[in-house]
Amino acid sequence: MRTDIPTLIQALRDFAAARNWAQFHAPKNLACALSVEAAELLEHFQWLSEEQSRHLSADKQAQVAAEAADVLLYLLQLCDKLDIDLLEAARLKMLVNAQKYPATAAGGTQ
Amino acid sequence: MRTDIPTLIQALRDFAAARNWAQFHAPKNLACALSVEAAELLEHFQWLSEEQSRHLSADKQAQVAAEAADVLLYLLQLCDKLDIDLLEAARLKMLVNAQKYPATAAGGTQ
Amino acid sequence: MRTDIPTLIQALRDFAAARNWAQFHAPKNLACALSVEAAELLEHFQWLSEEQSRHLSADKQAQVAAEAADVLLYLLQLCDKLDIDLLEAARLKMLVNAQKYPATAAGGTQ
Amino acid sequence: MRTDIPTLIQALRDFAAARNWAQFHAPKNLACALSVEAAELLEHFQWLSEEQSRHLSADKQAQVAAEAADVLLYLLQLCDKLDIDLLEAARLKMLVNAQKYPATAAGGTQ
Repeated sequence: MRTDIPTLIQALRDFAAARNWAQFHAPKNLACALSVEAAELLEHFQWLSEEQSRHLSADKQAQVAAEAADVLLYLLQLCDKLDIDLLEAARLKMLVNAQKYPATAAGGTQ
Repeated sequence: MRTDIPTLIQALRDFAAARNWAQFHAPKNLACALSVEAAELLEHFQWLSEEQSRHLSADKQAQVAAEAADVLLYLLQLCDKLDIDLLEAARLKMLVNAQKYPATAAGGTQ
Repeated sequence: MRTDIPTLIQALRDFAAARNWAQFHAPKNLACALSVEAAELLEHFQWLSEEQSRHLSADKQAQVAAEAADVLLYLLQLCDKLDIDLLEAARLKMLVNAQKYPATAAGGTQ
Repeated sequence: MRTDIPTLIQALRDFAAARNWAQFHAPKNLACALSVEAAELLEHFQWLSEEQSRHLSADKQAQVAAEAADVLLYLLQLCDKLDIDLLEAARLKMLVNAQKYPATAAGGTQ
Protein backbone atom coordinates (compact mmCIF):
# COMPACT_ATOMS: atom_id res chain seq x y z
CA MET A 1 0.00 0.00 0.00
CA ARG A 2 1.35 3.40 -1.00
CA THR A 3 0.93 6.45 1.18
CA ASP A 4 1.14 10.13 0.36
CA ILE A 5 1.69 13.41 2.13
CA PRO A 6 -1.96 14.35 2.79
CA THR A 7 -2.58 10.88 4.25
CA LEU A 8 0.42 11.22 6.55
CA ILE A 9 -0.69 14.67 7.71
CA GLN A 10 -4.15 13.38 8.63
CA ALA A 11 -2.67 10.35 10.40
CA LEU A 12 -0.37 12.62 12.41
CA ARG A 13 -3.32 14.81 13.43
CA ASP A 14 -5.30 11.77 14.57
CA PHE A 15 -2.28 10.34 16.39
CA ALA A 16 -1.62 13.54 18.35
CA ALA A 17 -5.32 14.08 19.11
CA ALA A 18 -5.72 10.55 20.50
CA ARG A 19 -2.84 11.22 22.92
CA ASN A 20 -3.72 14.78 23.87
CA TRP A 21 -0.37 15.96 22.54
CA ALA A 22 -1.56 19.18 20.88
CA GLN A 23 -0.54 21.00 24.07
CA PHE A 24 3.11 20.06 23.45
CA HIS A 25 3.07 20.74 19.74
CA ALA A 26 3.77 24.45 19.62
CA PRO A 27 5.70 25.22 16.43
CA LYS A 28 8.71 26.12 18.56
CA ASN A 29 8.74 22.69 20.17
CA LEU A 30 8.25 20.93 16.84
CA ALA A 31 11.17 22.92 15.42
CA CYS A 32 13.31 21.71 18.34
CA ALA A 33 12.23 18.11 17.76
CA LEU A 34 12.94 18.42 14.03
CA SER A 35 16.46 19.64 14.72
CA VAL A 36 17.04 16.86 17.24
CA GLU A 37 15.90 14.19 14.78
CA ALA A 38 18.08 15.63 12.00
CA ALA A 39 21.04 15.34 14.37
CA GLU A 40 20.15 11.74 15.24
CA LEU A 41 20.27 11.02 11.53
CA LEU A 42 23.63 12.79 11.23
CA GLU A 43 25.00 10.75 14.14
CA HIS A 44 24.98 7.66 11.91
CA PHE A 45 27.43 9.37 9.56
CA GLN A 46 29.72 11.33 11.86
CA TRP A 47 32.67 8.91 11.87
CA LEU A 48 32.18 7.53 8.36
CA SER A 49 34.14 8.74 5.37
CA GLU A 50 32.11 10.13 2.49
CA GLU A 51 32.84 6.94 0.57
CA GLN A 52 31.67 4.74 3.44
CA SER A 53 28.49 6.80 3.66
CA ARG A 54 27.64 5.75 0.09
CA HIS A 55 27.68 2.06 1.03
CA LEU A 56 25.69 1.46 4.20
CA SER A 57 24.92 -2.02 5.47
CA ALA A 58 21.27 -3.08 5.24
CA ASP A 59 20.94 -2.71 9.01
CA LYS A 60 22.42 0.80 9.02
CA GLN A 61 20.26 1.78 6.05
CA ALA A 62 17.15 0.71 7.96
CA GLN A 63 18.21 2.80 10.97
CA VAL A 64 18.82 5.82 8.78
CA ALA A 65 15.42 5.30 7.11
CA ALA A 66 13.73 5.37 10.53
CA GLU A 67 15.49 8.63 11.41
CA ALA A 68 14.62 10.15 8.03
CA ALA A 69 10.99 9.21 8.72
CA ASP A 70 11.13 11.02 12.08
CA VAL A 71 12.48 14.13 10.36
CA LEU A 72 9.64 14.06 7.82
CA LEU A 73 6.97 13.42 10.45
CA TYR A 74 8.03 16.41 12.56
CA LEU A 75 8.44 18.57 9.48
CA LEU A 76 4.89 17.74 8.37
CA GLN A 77 3.49 18.49 11.83
CA LEU A 78 5.34 21.79 11.99
CA CYS A 79 4.06 22.87 8.58
CA ASP A 80 0.56 21.71 9.42
CA LYS A 81 0.52 23.89 12.56
CA LEU A 82 1.77 26.89 10.61
CA ASP A 83 -0.50 26.43 7.58
CA ILE A 84 2.51 25.95 5.34
CA ASP A 85 2.00 23.91 2.17
CA LEU A 86 5.31 22.05 2.25
CA LEU A 87 5.26 20.68 -1.28
CA GLU A 88 4.36 24.07 -2.72
CA ALA A 89 7.12 25.68 -0.63
CA ALA A 90 9.57 23.11 -2.00
CA ARG A 91 8.45 23.77 -5.58
CA LEU A 92 8.93 27.52 -5.08
CA LYS A 93 12.33 27.01 -3.42
CA MET A 94 13.54 25.06 -6.45
CA LEU A 95 12.60 27.99 -8.67
CA VAL A 96 14.55 30.32 -6.37
CA ASN A 97 17.53 27.95 -6.41
CA ALA A 98 17.48 27.80 -10.21
CA GLN A 99 17.82 31.60 -10.30
CA LYS A 100 20.48 31.61 -7.59
CA TYR A 101 22.66 28.89 -9.09
CA PRO A 102 22.46 29.09 -12.91
CA ALA A 103 23.41 25.76 -14.45
CA THR A 104 25.95 27.25 -16.83
CA ALA A 105 27.82 29.20 -14.17
CA ALA A 106 28.01 26.56 -11.47
CA GLY A 107 30.83 24.48 -12.91
CA GLY A 108 31.18 21.97 -10.13
CA THR A 109 31.58 24.24 -7.15
CA GLN A 110 28.99 24.48 -4.42
CA MET B 1 -0.03 23.52 -10.34
CA ARG B 2 0.43 20.87 -7.65
CA THR B 3 3.65 18.97 -7.23
CA ASP B 4 4.38 15.67 -5.53
CA ILE B 5 7.32 13.81 -4.04
CA PRO B 6 8.38 11.82 -7.14
CA THR B 7 8.32 15.01 -9.22
CA LEU B 8 10.52 16.78 -6.67
CA ILE B 9 12.98 13.90 -6.56
CA GLN B 10 13.37 13.93 -10.34
CA ALA B 11 13.75 17.72 -10.38
CA LEU B 12 16.46 17.50 -7.71
CA ARG B 13 18.34 14.87 -9.73
CA ASP B 14 18.21 17.04 -12.84
CA PHE B 15 19.23 20.12 -10.89
CA ALA B 16 22.31 18.46 -9.36
CA ALA B 17 23.29 16.82 -12.66
CA ALA B 18 23.15 20.12 -14.55
CA ARG B 19 25.56 21.63 -12.01
CA ASN B 20 27.90 18.65 -11.62
CA TRP B 21 27.08 18.50 -7.90
CA ALA B 22 26.88 14.72 -7.54
CA GLN B 23 30.50 14.81 -6.37
CA PHE B 24 29.46 16.82 -3.30
CA HIS B 25 26.34 14.84 -2.56
CA ALA B 26 27.71 11.98 -0.51
CA PRO B 27 25.06 10.90 2.01
CA LYS B 28 27.30 12.16 4.80
CA ASN B 29 27.40 15.65 3.31
CA LEU B 30 23.65 15.68 2.68
CA ALA B 31 23.09 14.64 6.30
CA CYS B 32 25.24 17.60 7.39
CA ALA B 33 23.28 19.96 5.14
CA LEU B 34 19.97 18.59 6.44
CA SER B 35 21.02 19.24 10.01
CA VAL B 36 22.21 22.75 9.15
CA GLU B 37 18.90 23.60 7.45
CA ALA B 38 16.89 22.22 10.38
CA ALA B 39 18.89 24.53 12.65
CA GLU B 40 18.25 27.52 10.36
CA LEU B 41 14.56 26.78 10.73
CA LEU B 42 14.94 26.53 14.52
CA GLU B 43 16.74 29.86 14.59
CA HIS B 44 13.47 31.61 13.73
CA PHE B 45 11.95 30.28 16.95
CA GLN B 46 14.79 30.43 19.46
CA TRP B 47 13.77 33.63 21.25
CA LEU B 48 10.01 33.26 20.78
CA SER B 49 7.71 31.92 23.46
CA GLU B 50 5.68 28.87 22.53
CA GLU B 51 2.63 31.11 22.28
CA GLN B 52 4.41 33.55 19.97
CA SER B 53 5.51 30.64 17.80
CA ARG B 54 1.84 29.84 17.15
CA HIS B 55 1.20 33.29 15.66
CA LEU B 56 3.91 34.19 13.16
CA SER B 57 3.70 37.26 10.96
CA ALA B 58 3.14 36.59 7.26
CA ASP B 59 6.74 37.57 6.57
CA LYS B 60 8.12 35.24 9.23
CA GLN B 61 5.85 32.44 8.05
CA ALA B 62 7.24 32.80 4.52
CA GLN B 63 10.81 32.62 5.84
CA VAL B 64 9.99 29.51 7.85
CA ALA B 65 8.34 27.96 4.78
CA ALA B 66 11.52 28.50 2.77
CA GLU B 67 13.61 26.81 5.48
CA ALA B 68 11.13 23.94 5.72
CA ALA B 69 11.46 23.52 1.96
CA ASP B 70 15.25 23.32 2.28
CA VAL B 71 14.89 20.62 4.93
CA LEU B 72 12.60 18.59 2.67
CA LEU B 73 14.82 19.03 -0.40
CA TYR B 74 17.93 17.75 1.39
CA LEU B 75 15.96 14.95 3.03
CA LEU B 76 14.70 13.80 -0.38
CA GLN B 77 18.18 13.92 -1.89
CA LEU B 78 19.63 11.96 1.03
CA CYS B 79 16.95 9.28 0.76
CA ASP B 80 17.34 9.15 -3.01
CA LYS B 81 21.09 8.50 -2.69
CA LEU B 82 20.48 5.75 -0.12
CA ASP B 83 17.57 4.08 -1.95
CA ILE B 84 15.25 4.86 0.95
CA ASP B 85 11.54 5.17 0.16
CA LEU B 86 10.81 8.09 2.50
CA LEU B 87 7.01 7.89 2.43
CA GLU B 88 7.08 4.14 3.09
CA ALA B 89 9.59 4.69 5.92
CA ALA B 90 7.24 7.31 7.39
CA ARG B 91 4.26 4.96 7.14
CA LEU B 92 6.21 2.21 8.91
CA LYS B 93 7.44 4.62 11.59
CA MET B 94 3.88 5.61 12.40
CA LEU B 95 3.04 1.95 12.96
CA VAL B 96 6.03 1.64 15.28
CA ASN B 97 4.99 4.79 17.13
CA ALA B 98 1.44 3.48 17.57
CA GLN B 99 2.88 0.42 19.32
CA LYS B 100 5.31 2.47 21.38
CA TYR B 101 2.81 5.08 22.56
CA PRO B 102 -0.60 3.41 23.00
CA ALA B 103 -3.36 5.99 22.86
CA THR B 104 -5.01 4.87 26.09
CA ALA B 105 -1.82 4.97 28.15
CA ALA B 106 -0.37 8.26 26.96
CA GLY B 107 -2.64 10.60 28.92
CA GLY B 108 -1.11 13.87 27.92
CA THR B 109 2.53 13.28 28.71
CA GLN B 110 5.18 13.06 26.05
CA MET C 1 40.43 19.15 42.45
CA ARG C 2 39.81 21.91 39.93
CA THR C 3 40.55 21.50 36.28
CA ASP C 4 41.09 24.07 33.55
CA ILE C 5 40.97 24.32 29.78
CA PRO C 6 44.64 23.55 29.02
CA THR C 7 44.47 20.48 31.29
CA LEU C 8 41.37 19.25 29.48
CA ILE C 9 42.97 19.78 26.07
CA GLN C 10 46.02 17.74 27.05
CA ALA C 11 43.84 14.99 28.54
CA LEU C 12 41.80 14.83 25.33
CA ARG C 13 44.96 14.52 23.24
CA ASP C 14 46.25 11.69 25.43
CA PHE C 15 42.86 9.97 25.37
CA ALA C 16 42.58 10.01 21.57
CA ALA C 17 46.22 8.96 21.10
CA ALA C 18 45.84 5.97 23.41
CA ARG C 19 42.89 4.76 21.30
CA ASN C 20 44.31 5.56 17.87
CA TRP C 21 41.38 7.88 17.21
CA ALA C 22 43.29 10.68 15.46
CA GLN C 23 42.28 9.08 12.15
CA PHE C 24 38.61 9.81 12.93
CA HIS C 25 39.16 13.28 14.30
CA ALA C 26 39.16 15.35 11.13
CA PRO C 27 37.72 18.80 11.93
CA LYS C 28 34.71 17.99 9.75
CA ASN C 29 33.90 14.92 11.81
CA LEU C 30 34.42 16.77 15.09
CA ALA C 31 32.07 19.51 13.85
CA CYS C 32 29.45 16.81 13.14
CA ALA C 33 29.92 15.31 16.60
CA LEU C 34 29.67 18.76 18.21
CA SER C 35 26.37 19.42 16.45
CA VAL C 36 25.04 15.99 17.44
CA GLU C 37 25.92 16.55 21.10
CA ALA C 38 24.33 20.01 21.11
CA ALA C 39 21.13 18.39 19.80
CA GLU C 40 21.28 15.71 22.49
CA LEU C 41 21.41 18.52 25.02
CA LEU C 42 18.47 20.26 23.33
CA GLU C 43 16.47 17.02 23.41
CA HIS C 44 16.16 17.37 27.20
CA PHE C 45 14.31 20.67 26.71
CA GLN C 46 12.17 20.11 23.62
CA TRP C 47 8.84 19.42 25.35
CA LEU C 48 9.46 21.62 28.40
CA SER C 49 8.05 25.11 28.73
CA GLU C 50 10.58 27.87 29.25
CA GLU C 51 9.49 28.04 32.88
CA GLN C 52 9.94 24.30 33.39
CA SER C 53 13.40 24.58 31.85
CA ARG C 54 14.38 26.91 34.68
CA HIS C 55 13.60 24.28 37.31
CA LEU C 56 15.11 20.95 36.38
CA SER C 57 15.11 17.99 38.74
CA ALA C 58 18.51 16.99 40.13
CA ASP C 59 18.50 13.93 37.88
CA LYS C 60 17.70 15.94 34.77
CA GLN C 61 20.30 18.56 35.71
CA ALA C 62 22.95 15.84 35.93
CA GLN C 63 21.99 14.51 32.50
CA VAL C 64 22.16 18.00 31.01
CA ALA C 65 25.56 18.54 32.67
CA ALA C 66 26.88 15.36 30.99
CA GLU C 67 25.65 16.56 27.60
CA ALA C 68 27.13 20.02 28.18
CA ALA C 69 30.43 18.32 28.97
CA ASP C 70 30.29 16.41 25.68
CA VAL C 71 29.71 19.66 23.81
CA LEU C 72 32.73 21.26 25.48
CA LEU C 73 34.97 18.23 24.91
CA TYR C 74 34.25 18.11 21.17
CA LEU C 75 34.56 21.88 20.91
CA LEU C 76 37.99 21.76 22.55
CA GLN C 77 39.14 18.95 20.26
CA LEU C 78 37.91 20.79 17.18
CA CYS C 79 39.70 23.98 18.19
CA ASP C 80 42.84 22.06 19.08
CA LYS C 81 42.95 20.46 15.60
CA LEU C 82 42.46 23.85 13.94
CA ASP C 83 44.92 25.77 16.14
CA ILE C 84 42.12 27.98 17.42
CA ASP C 85 42.57 29.57 20.85
CA LEU C 86 38.98 29.16 22.03
CA LEU C 87 39.16 31.47 25.05
CA GLU C 88 40.79 34.21 23.00
CA ALA C 89 38.17 33.74 20.27
CA ALA C 90 35.44 34.07 22.91
CA ARG C 91 37.03 37.22 24.31
CA LEU C 92 37.18 38.77 20.85
CA LYS C 93 33.61 37.71 20.06
CA MET C 94 32.38 39.53 23.16
CA LEU C 95 34.06 42.71 21.93
CA VAL C 96 32.33 42.27 18.57
CA ASN C 97 29.00 41.67 20.29
CA ALA C 98 29.41 44.79 22.40
CA GLN C 99 29.77 46.82 19.18
CA LYS C 100 26.89 45.02 17.48
CA TYR C 101 24.42 45.32 20.37
CA PRO C 102 25.03 48.61 22.20
CA ALA C 103 23.65 48.42 25.72
CA THR C 104 21.69 51.66 25.47
CA ALA C 105 19.93 50.74 22.24
CA ALA C 106 19.01 47.14 23.01
CA GLY C 107 16.04 47.83 25.27
CA GLY C 108 14.94 44.29 25.88
CA THR C 109 14.66 42.98 22.34
CA GLN C 110 16.94 40.31 20.97
CA MET D 1 45.77 39.58 27.96
CA ARG D 2 44.55 36.08 28.72
CA THR D 3 41.02 35.36 29.75
CA ASP D 4 39.53 32.41 31.59
CA ILE D 5 36.16 30.74 32.09
CA PRO D 6 35.10 32.58 35.29
CA THR D 7 35.94 35.92 33.67
CA LEU D 8 33.85 35.04 30.61
CA ILE D 9 30.90 33.95 32.75
CA GLN D 10 30.93 37.25 34.64
CA ALA D 11 31.24 39.25 31.41
CA LEU D 12 28.27 37.35 29.93
CA ARG D 13 26.17 38.09 33.02
CA ASP D 14 27.01 41.79 32.81
CA PHE D 15 26.36 41.85 29.07
CA ALA D 16 22.89 40.29 29.38
CA ALA D 17 21.97 42.43 32.37
CA ALA D 18 22.91 45.67 30.57
CA ARG D 19 20.56 44.69 27.72
CA ASN D 20 17.69 43.30 29.81
CA TRP D 21 18.09 39.95 28.08
CA ALA D 22 17.56 37.72 31.13
CA GLN D 23 13.91 37.43 30.07
CA PHE D 24 14.99 35.64 26.87
CA HIS D 25 17.61 33.46 28.49
CA ALA D 26 15.52 30.55 29.71
CA PRO D 27 17.67 27.40 29.58
CA LYS D 28 15.42 26.05 26.83
CA ASN D 29 16.12 29.08 24.64
CA LEU D 30 19.84 28.95 25.33
CA ALA D 31 19.84 25.26 24.38
CA CYS D 32 18.17 26.21 21.08
CA ALA D 33 20.73 28.93 20.46
CA LEU D 34 23.58 26.56 21.29
CA SER D 35 22.31 24.03 18.76
CA VAL D 36 21.88 26.74 16.12
CA GLU D 37 25.45 27.99 16.62
CA ALA D 38 26.86 24.46 16.47
CA ALA D 39 25.09 24.05 13.11
CA GLU D 40 26.49 27.36 11.85
CA LEU D 41 29.92 26.01 12.66
CA LEU D 42 29.13 22.75 10.87
CA GLU D 43 27.95 24.68 7.81
CA HIS D 44 31.56 25.69 7.11
CA PHE D 45 32.47 22.01 6.72
CA GLN D 46 29.46 20.47 5.00
CA TRP D 47 30.84 20.37 1.45
CA LEU D 48 34.51 19.89 2.39
CA SER D 49 36.25 16.54 2.38
CA GLU D 50 37.78 15.44 5.66
CA GLU D 51 41.19 16.21 4.19
CA GLN D 52 40.13 19.72 3.14
CA SER D 53 38.77 20.30 6.64
CA ARG D 54 42.28 19.78 8.01
CA HIS D 55 43.66 22.65 5.93
CA LEU D 56 41.45 25.70 6.21
CA SER D 57 42.43 29.06 4.77
CA ALA D 58 43.23 31.78 7.31
CA ASP D 59 39.95 33.49 6.48
CA LYS D 60 37.91 30.33 6.93
CA GLN D 61 39.74 29.53 10.16
CA ALA D 62 38.82 32.95 11.53
CA GLN D 63 35.16 32.39 10.65
CA VAL D 64 35.18 28.99 12.32
CA ALA D 65 36.84 30.52 15.39
CA ALA D 66 34.02 33.06 15.66
CA GLU D 67 31.40 30.30 15.46
CA ALA D 68 33.28 28.22 18.03
CA ALA D 69 33.26 31.26 20.30
CA ASP D 70 29.49 31.56 19.93
CA VAL D 71 29.08 27.92 20.88
CA LEU D 72 31.18 28.42 24.01
CA LEU D 73 29.40 31.62 24.99
CA TYR D 74 25.94 30.04 24.83
CA LEU D 75 27.20 26.91 26.57
CA LEU D 76 28.58 28.99 29.43
CA GLN D 77 25.35 30.94 29.75
CA LEU D 78 23.27 27.78 29.75
CA CYS D 79 25.44 26.18 32.44
CA ASP D 80 25.42 29.38 34.47
CA LYS D 81 21.60 29.46 34.47
CA LEU D 82 21.43 25.80 35.53
CA ASP D 83 24.17 25.99 38.18
CA ILE D 84 26.28 23.52 36.26
CA ASP D 85 30.05 23.66 36.79
CA LEU D 86 31.04 23.00 33.19
CA LEU D 87 34.73 22.27 33.79
CA GLU D 88 33.91 19.86 36.58
CA ALA D 89 31.27 18.19 34.40
CA ALA D 90 33.89 17.82 31.64
CA ARG D 91 36.41 16.33 34.09
CA LEU D 92 33.82 13.80 35.29
CA LYS D 93 32.78 12.95 31.74
CA MET D 94 36.36 12.12 30.85
CA LEU D 95 36.47 9.66 33.74
CA VAL D 96 33.24 8.08 32.48
CA ASN D 97 34.65 7.88 28.94
CA ALA D 98 37.84 6.23 30.20
CA GLN D 99 35.69 3.47 31.73
CA LYS D 100 33.49 3.19 28.67
CA TYR D 101 36.29 3.03 26.11
CA PRO D 102 39.28 1.20 27.65
CA ALA D 103 42.46 2.12 25.81
CA THR D 104 43.56 -1.47 25.29
CA ALA D 105 40.25 -2.61 23.77
CA ALA D 106 39.56 0.29 21.46
CA GLY D 107 41.99 -0.65 18.69
CA GLY D 108 41.20 2.15 16.30
CA THR D 109 37.45 1.85 15.99
CA GLN D 110 35.09 4.50 17.29
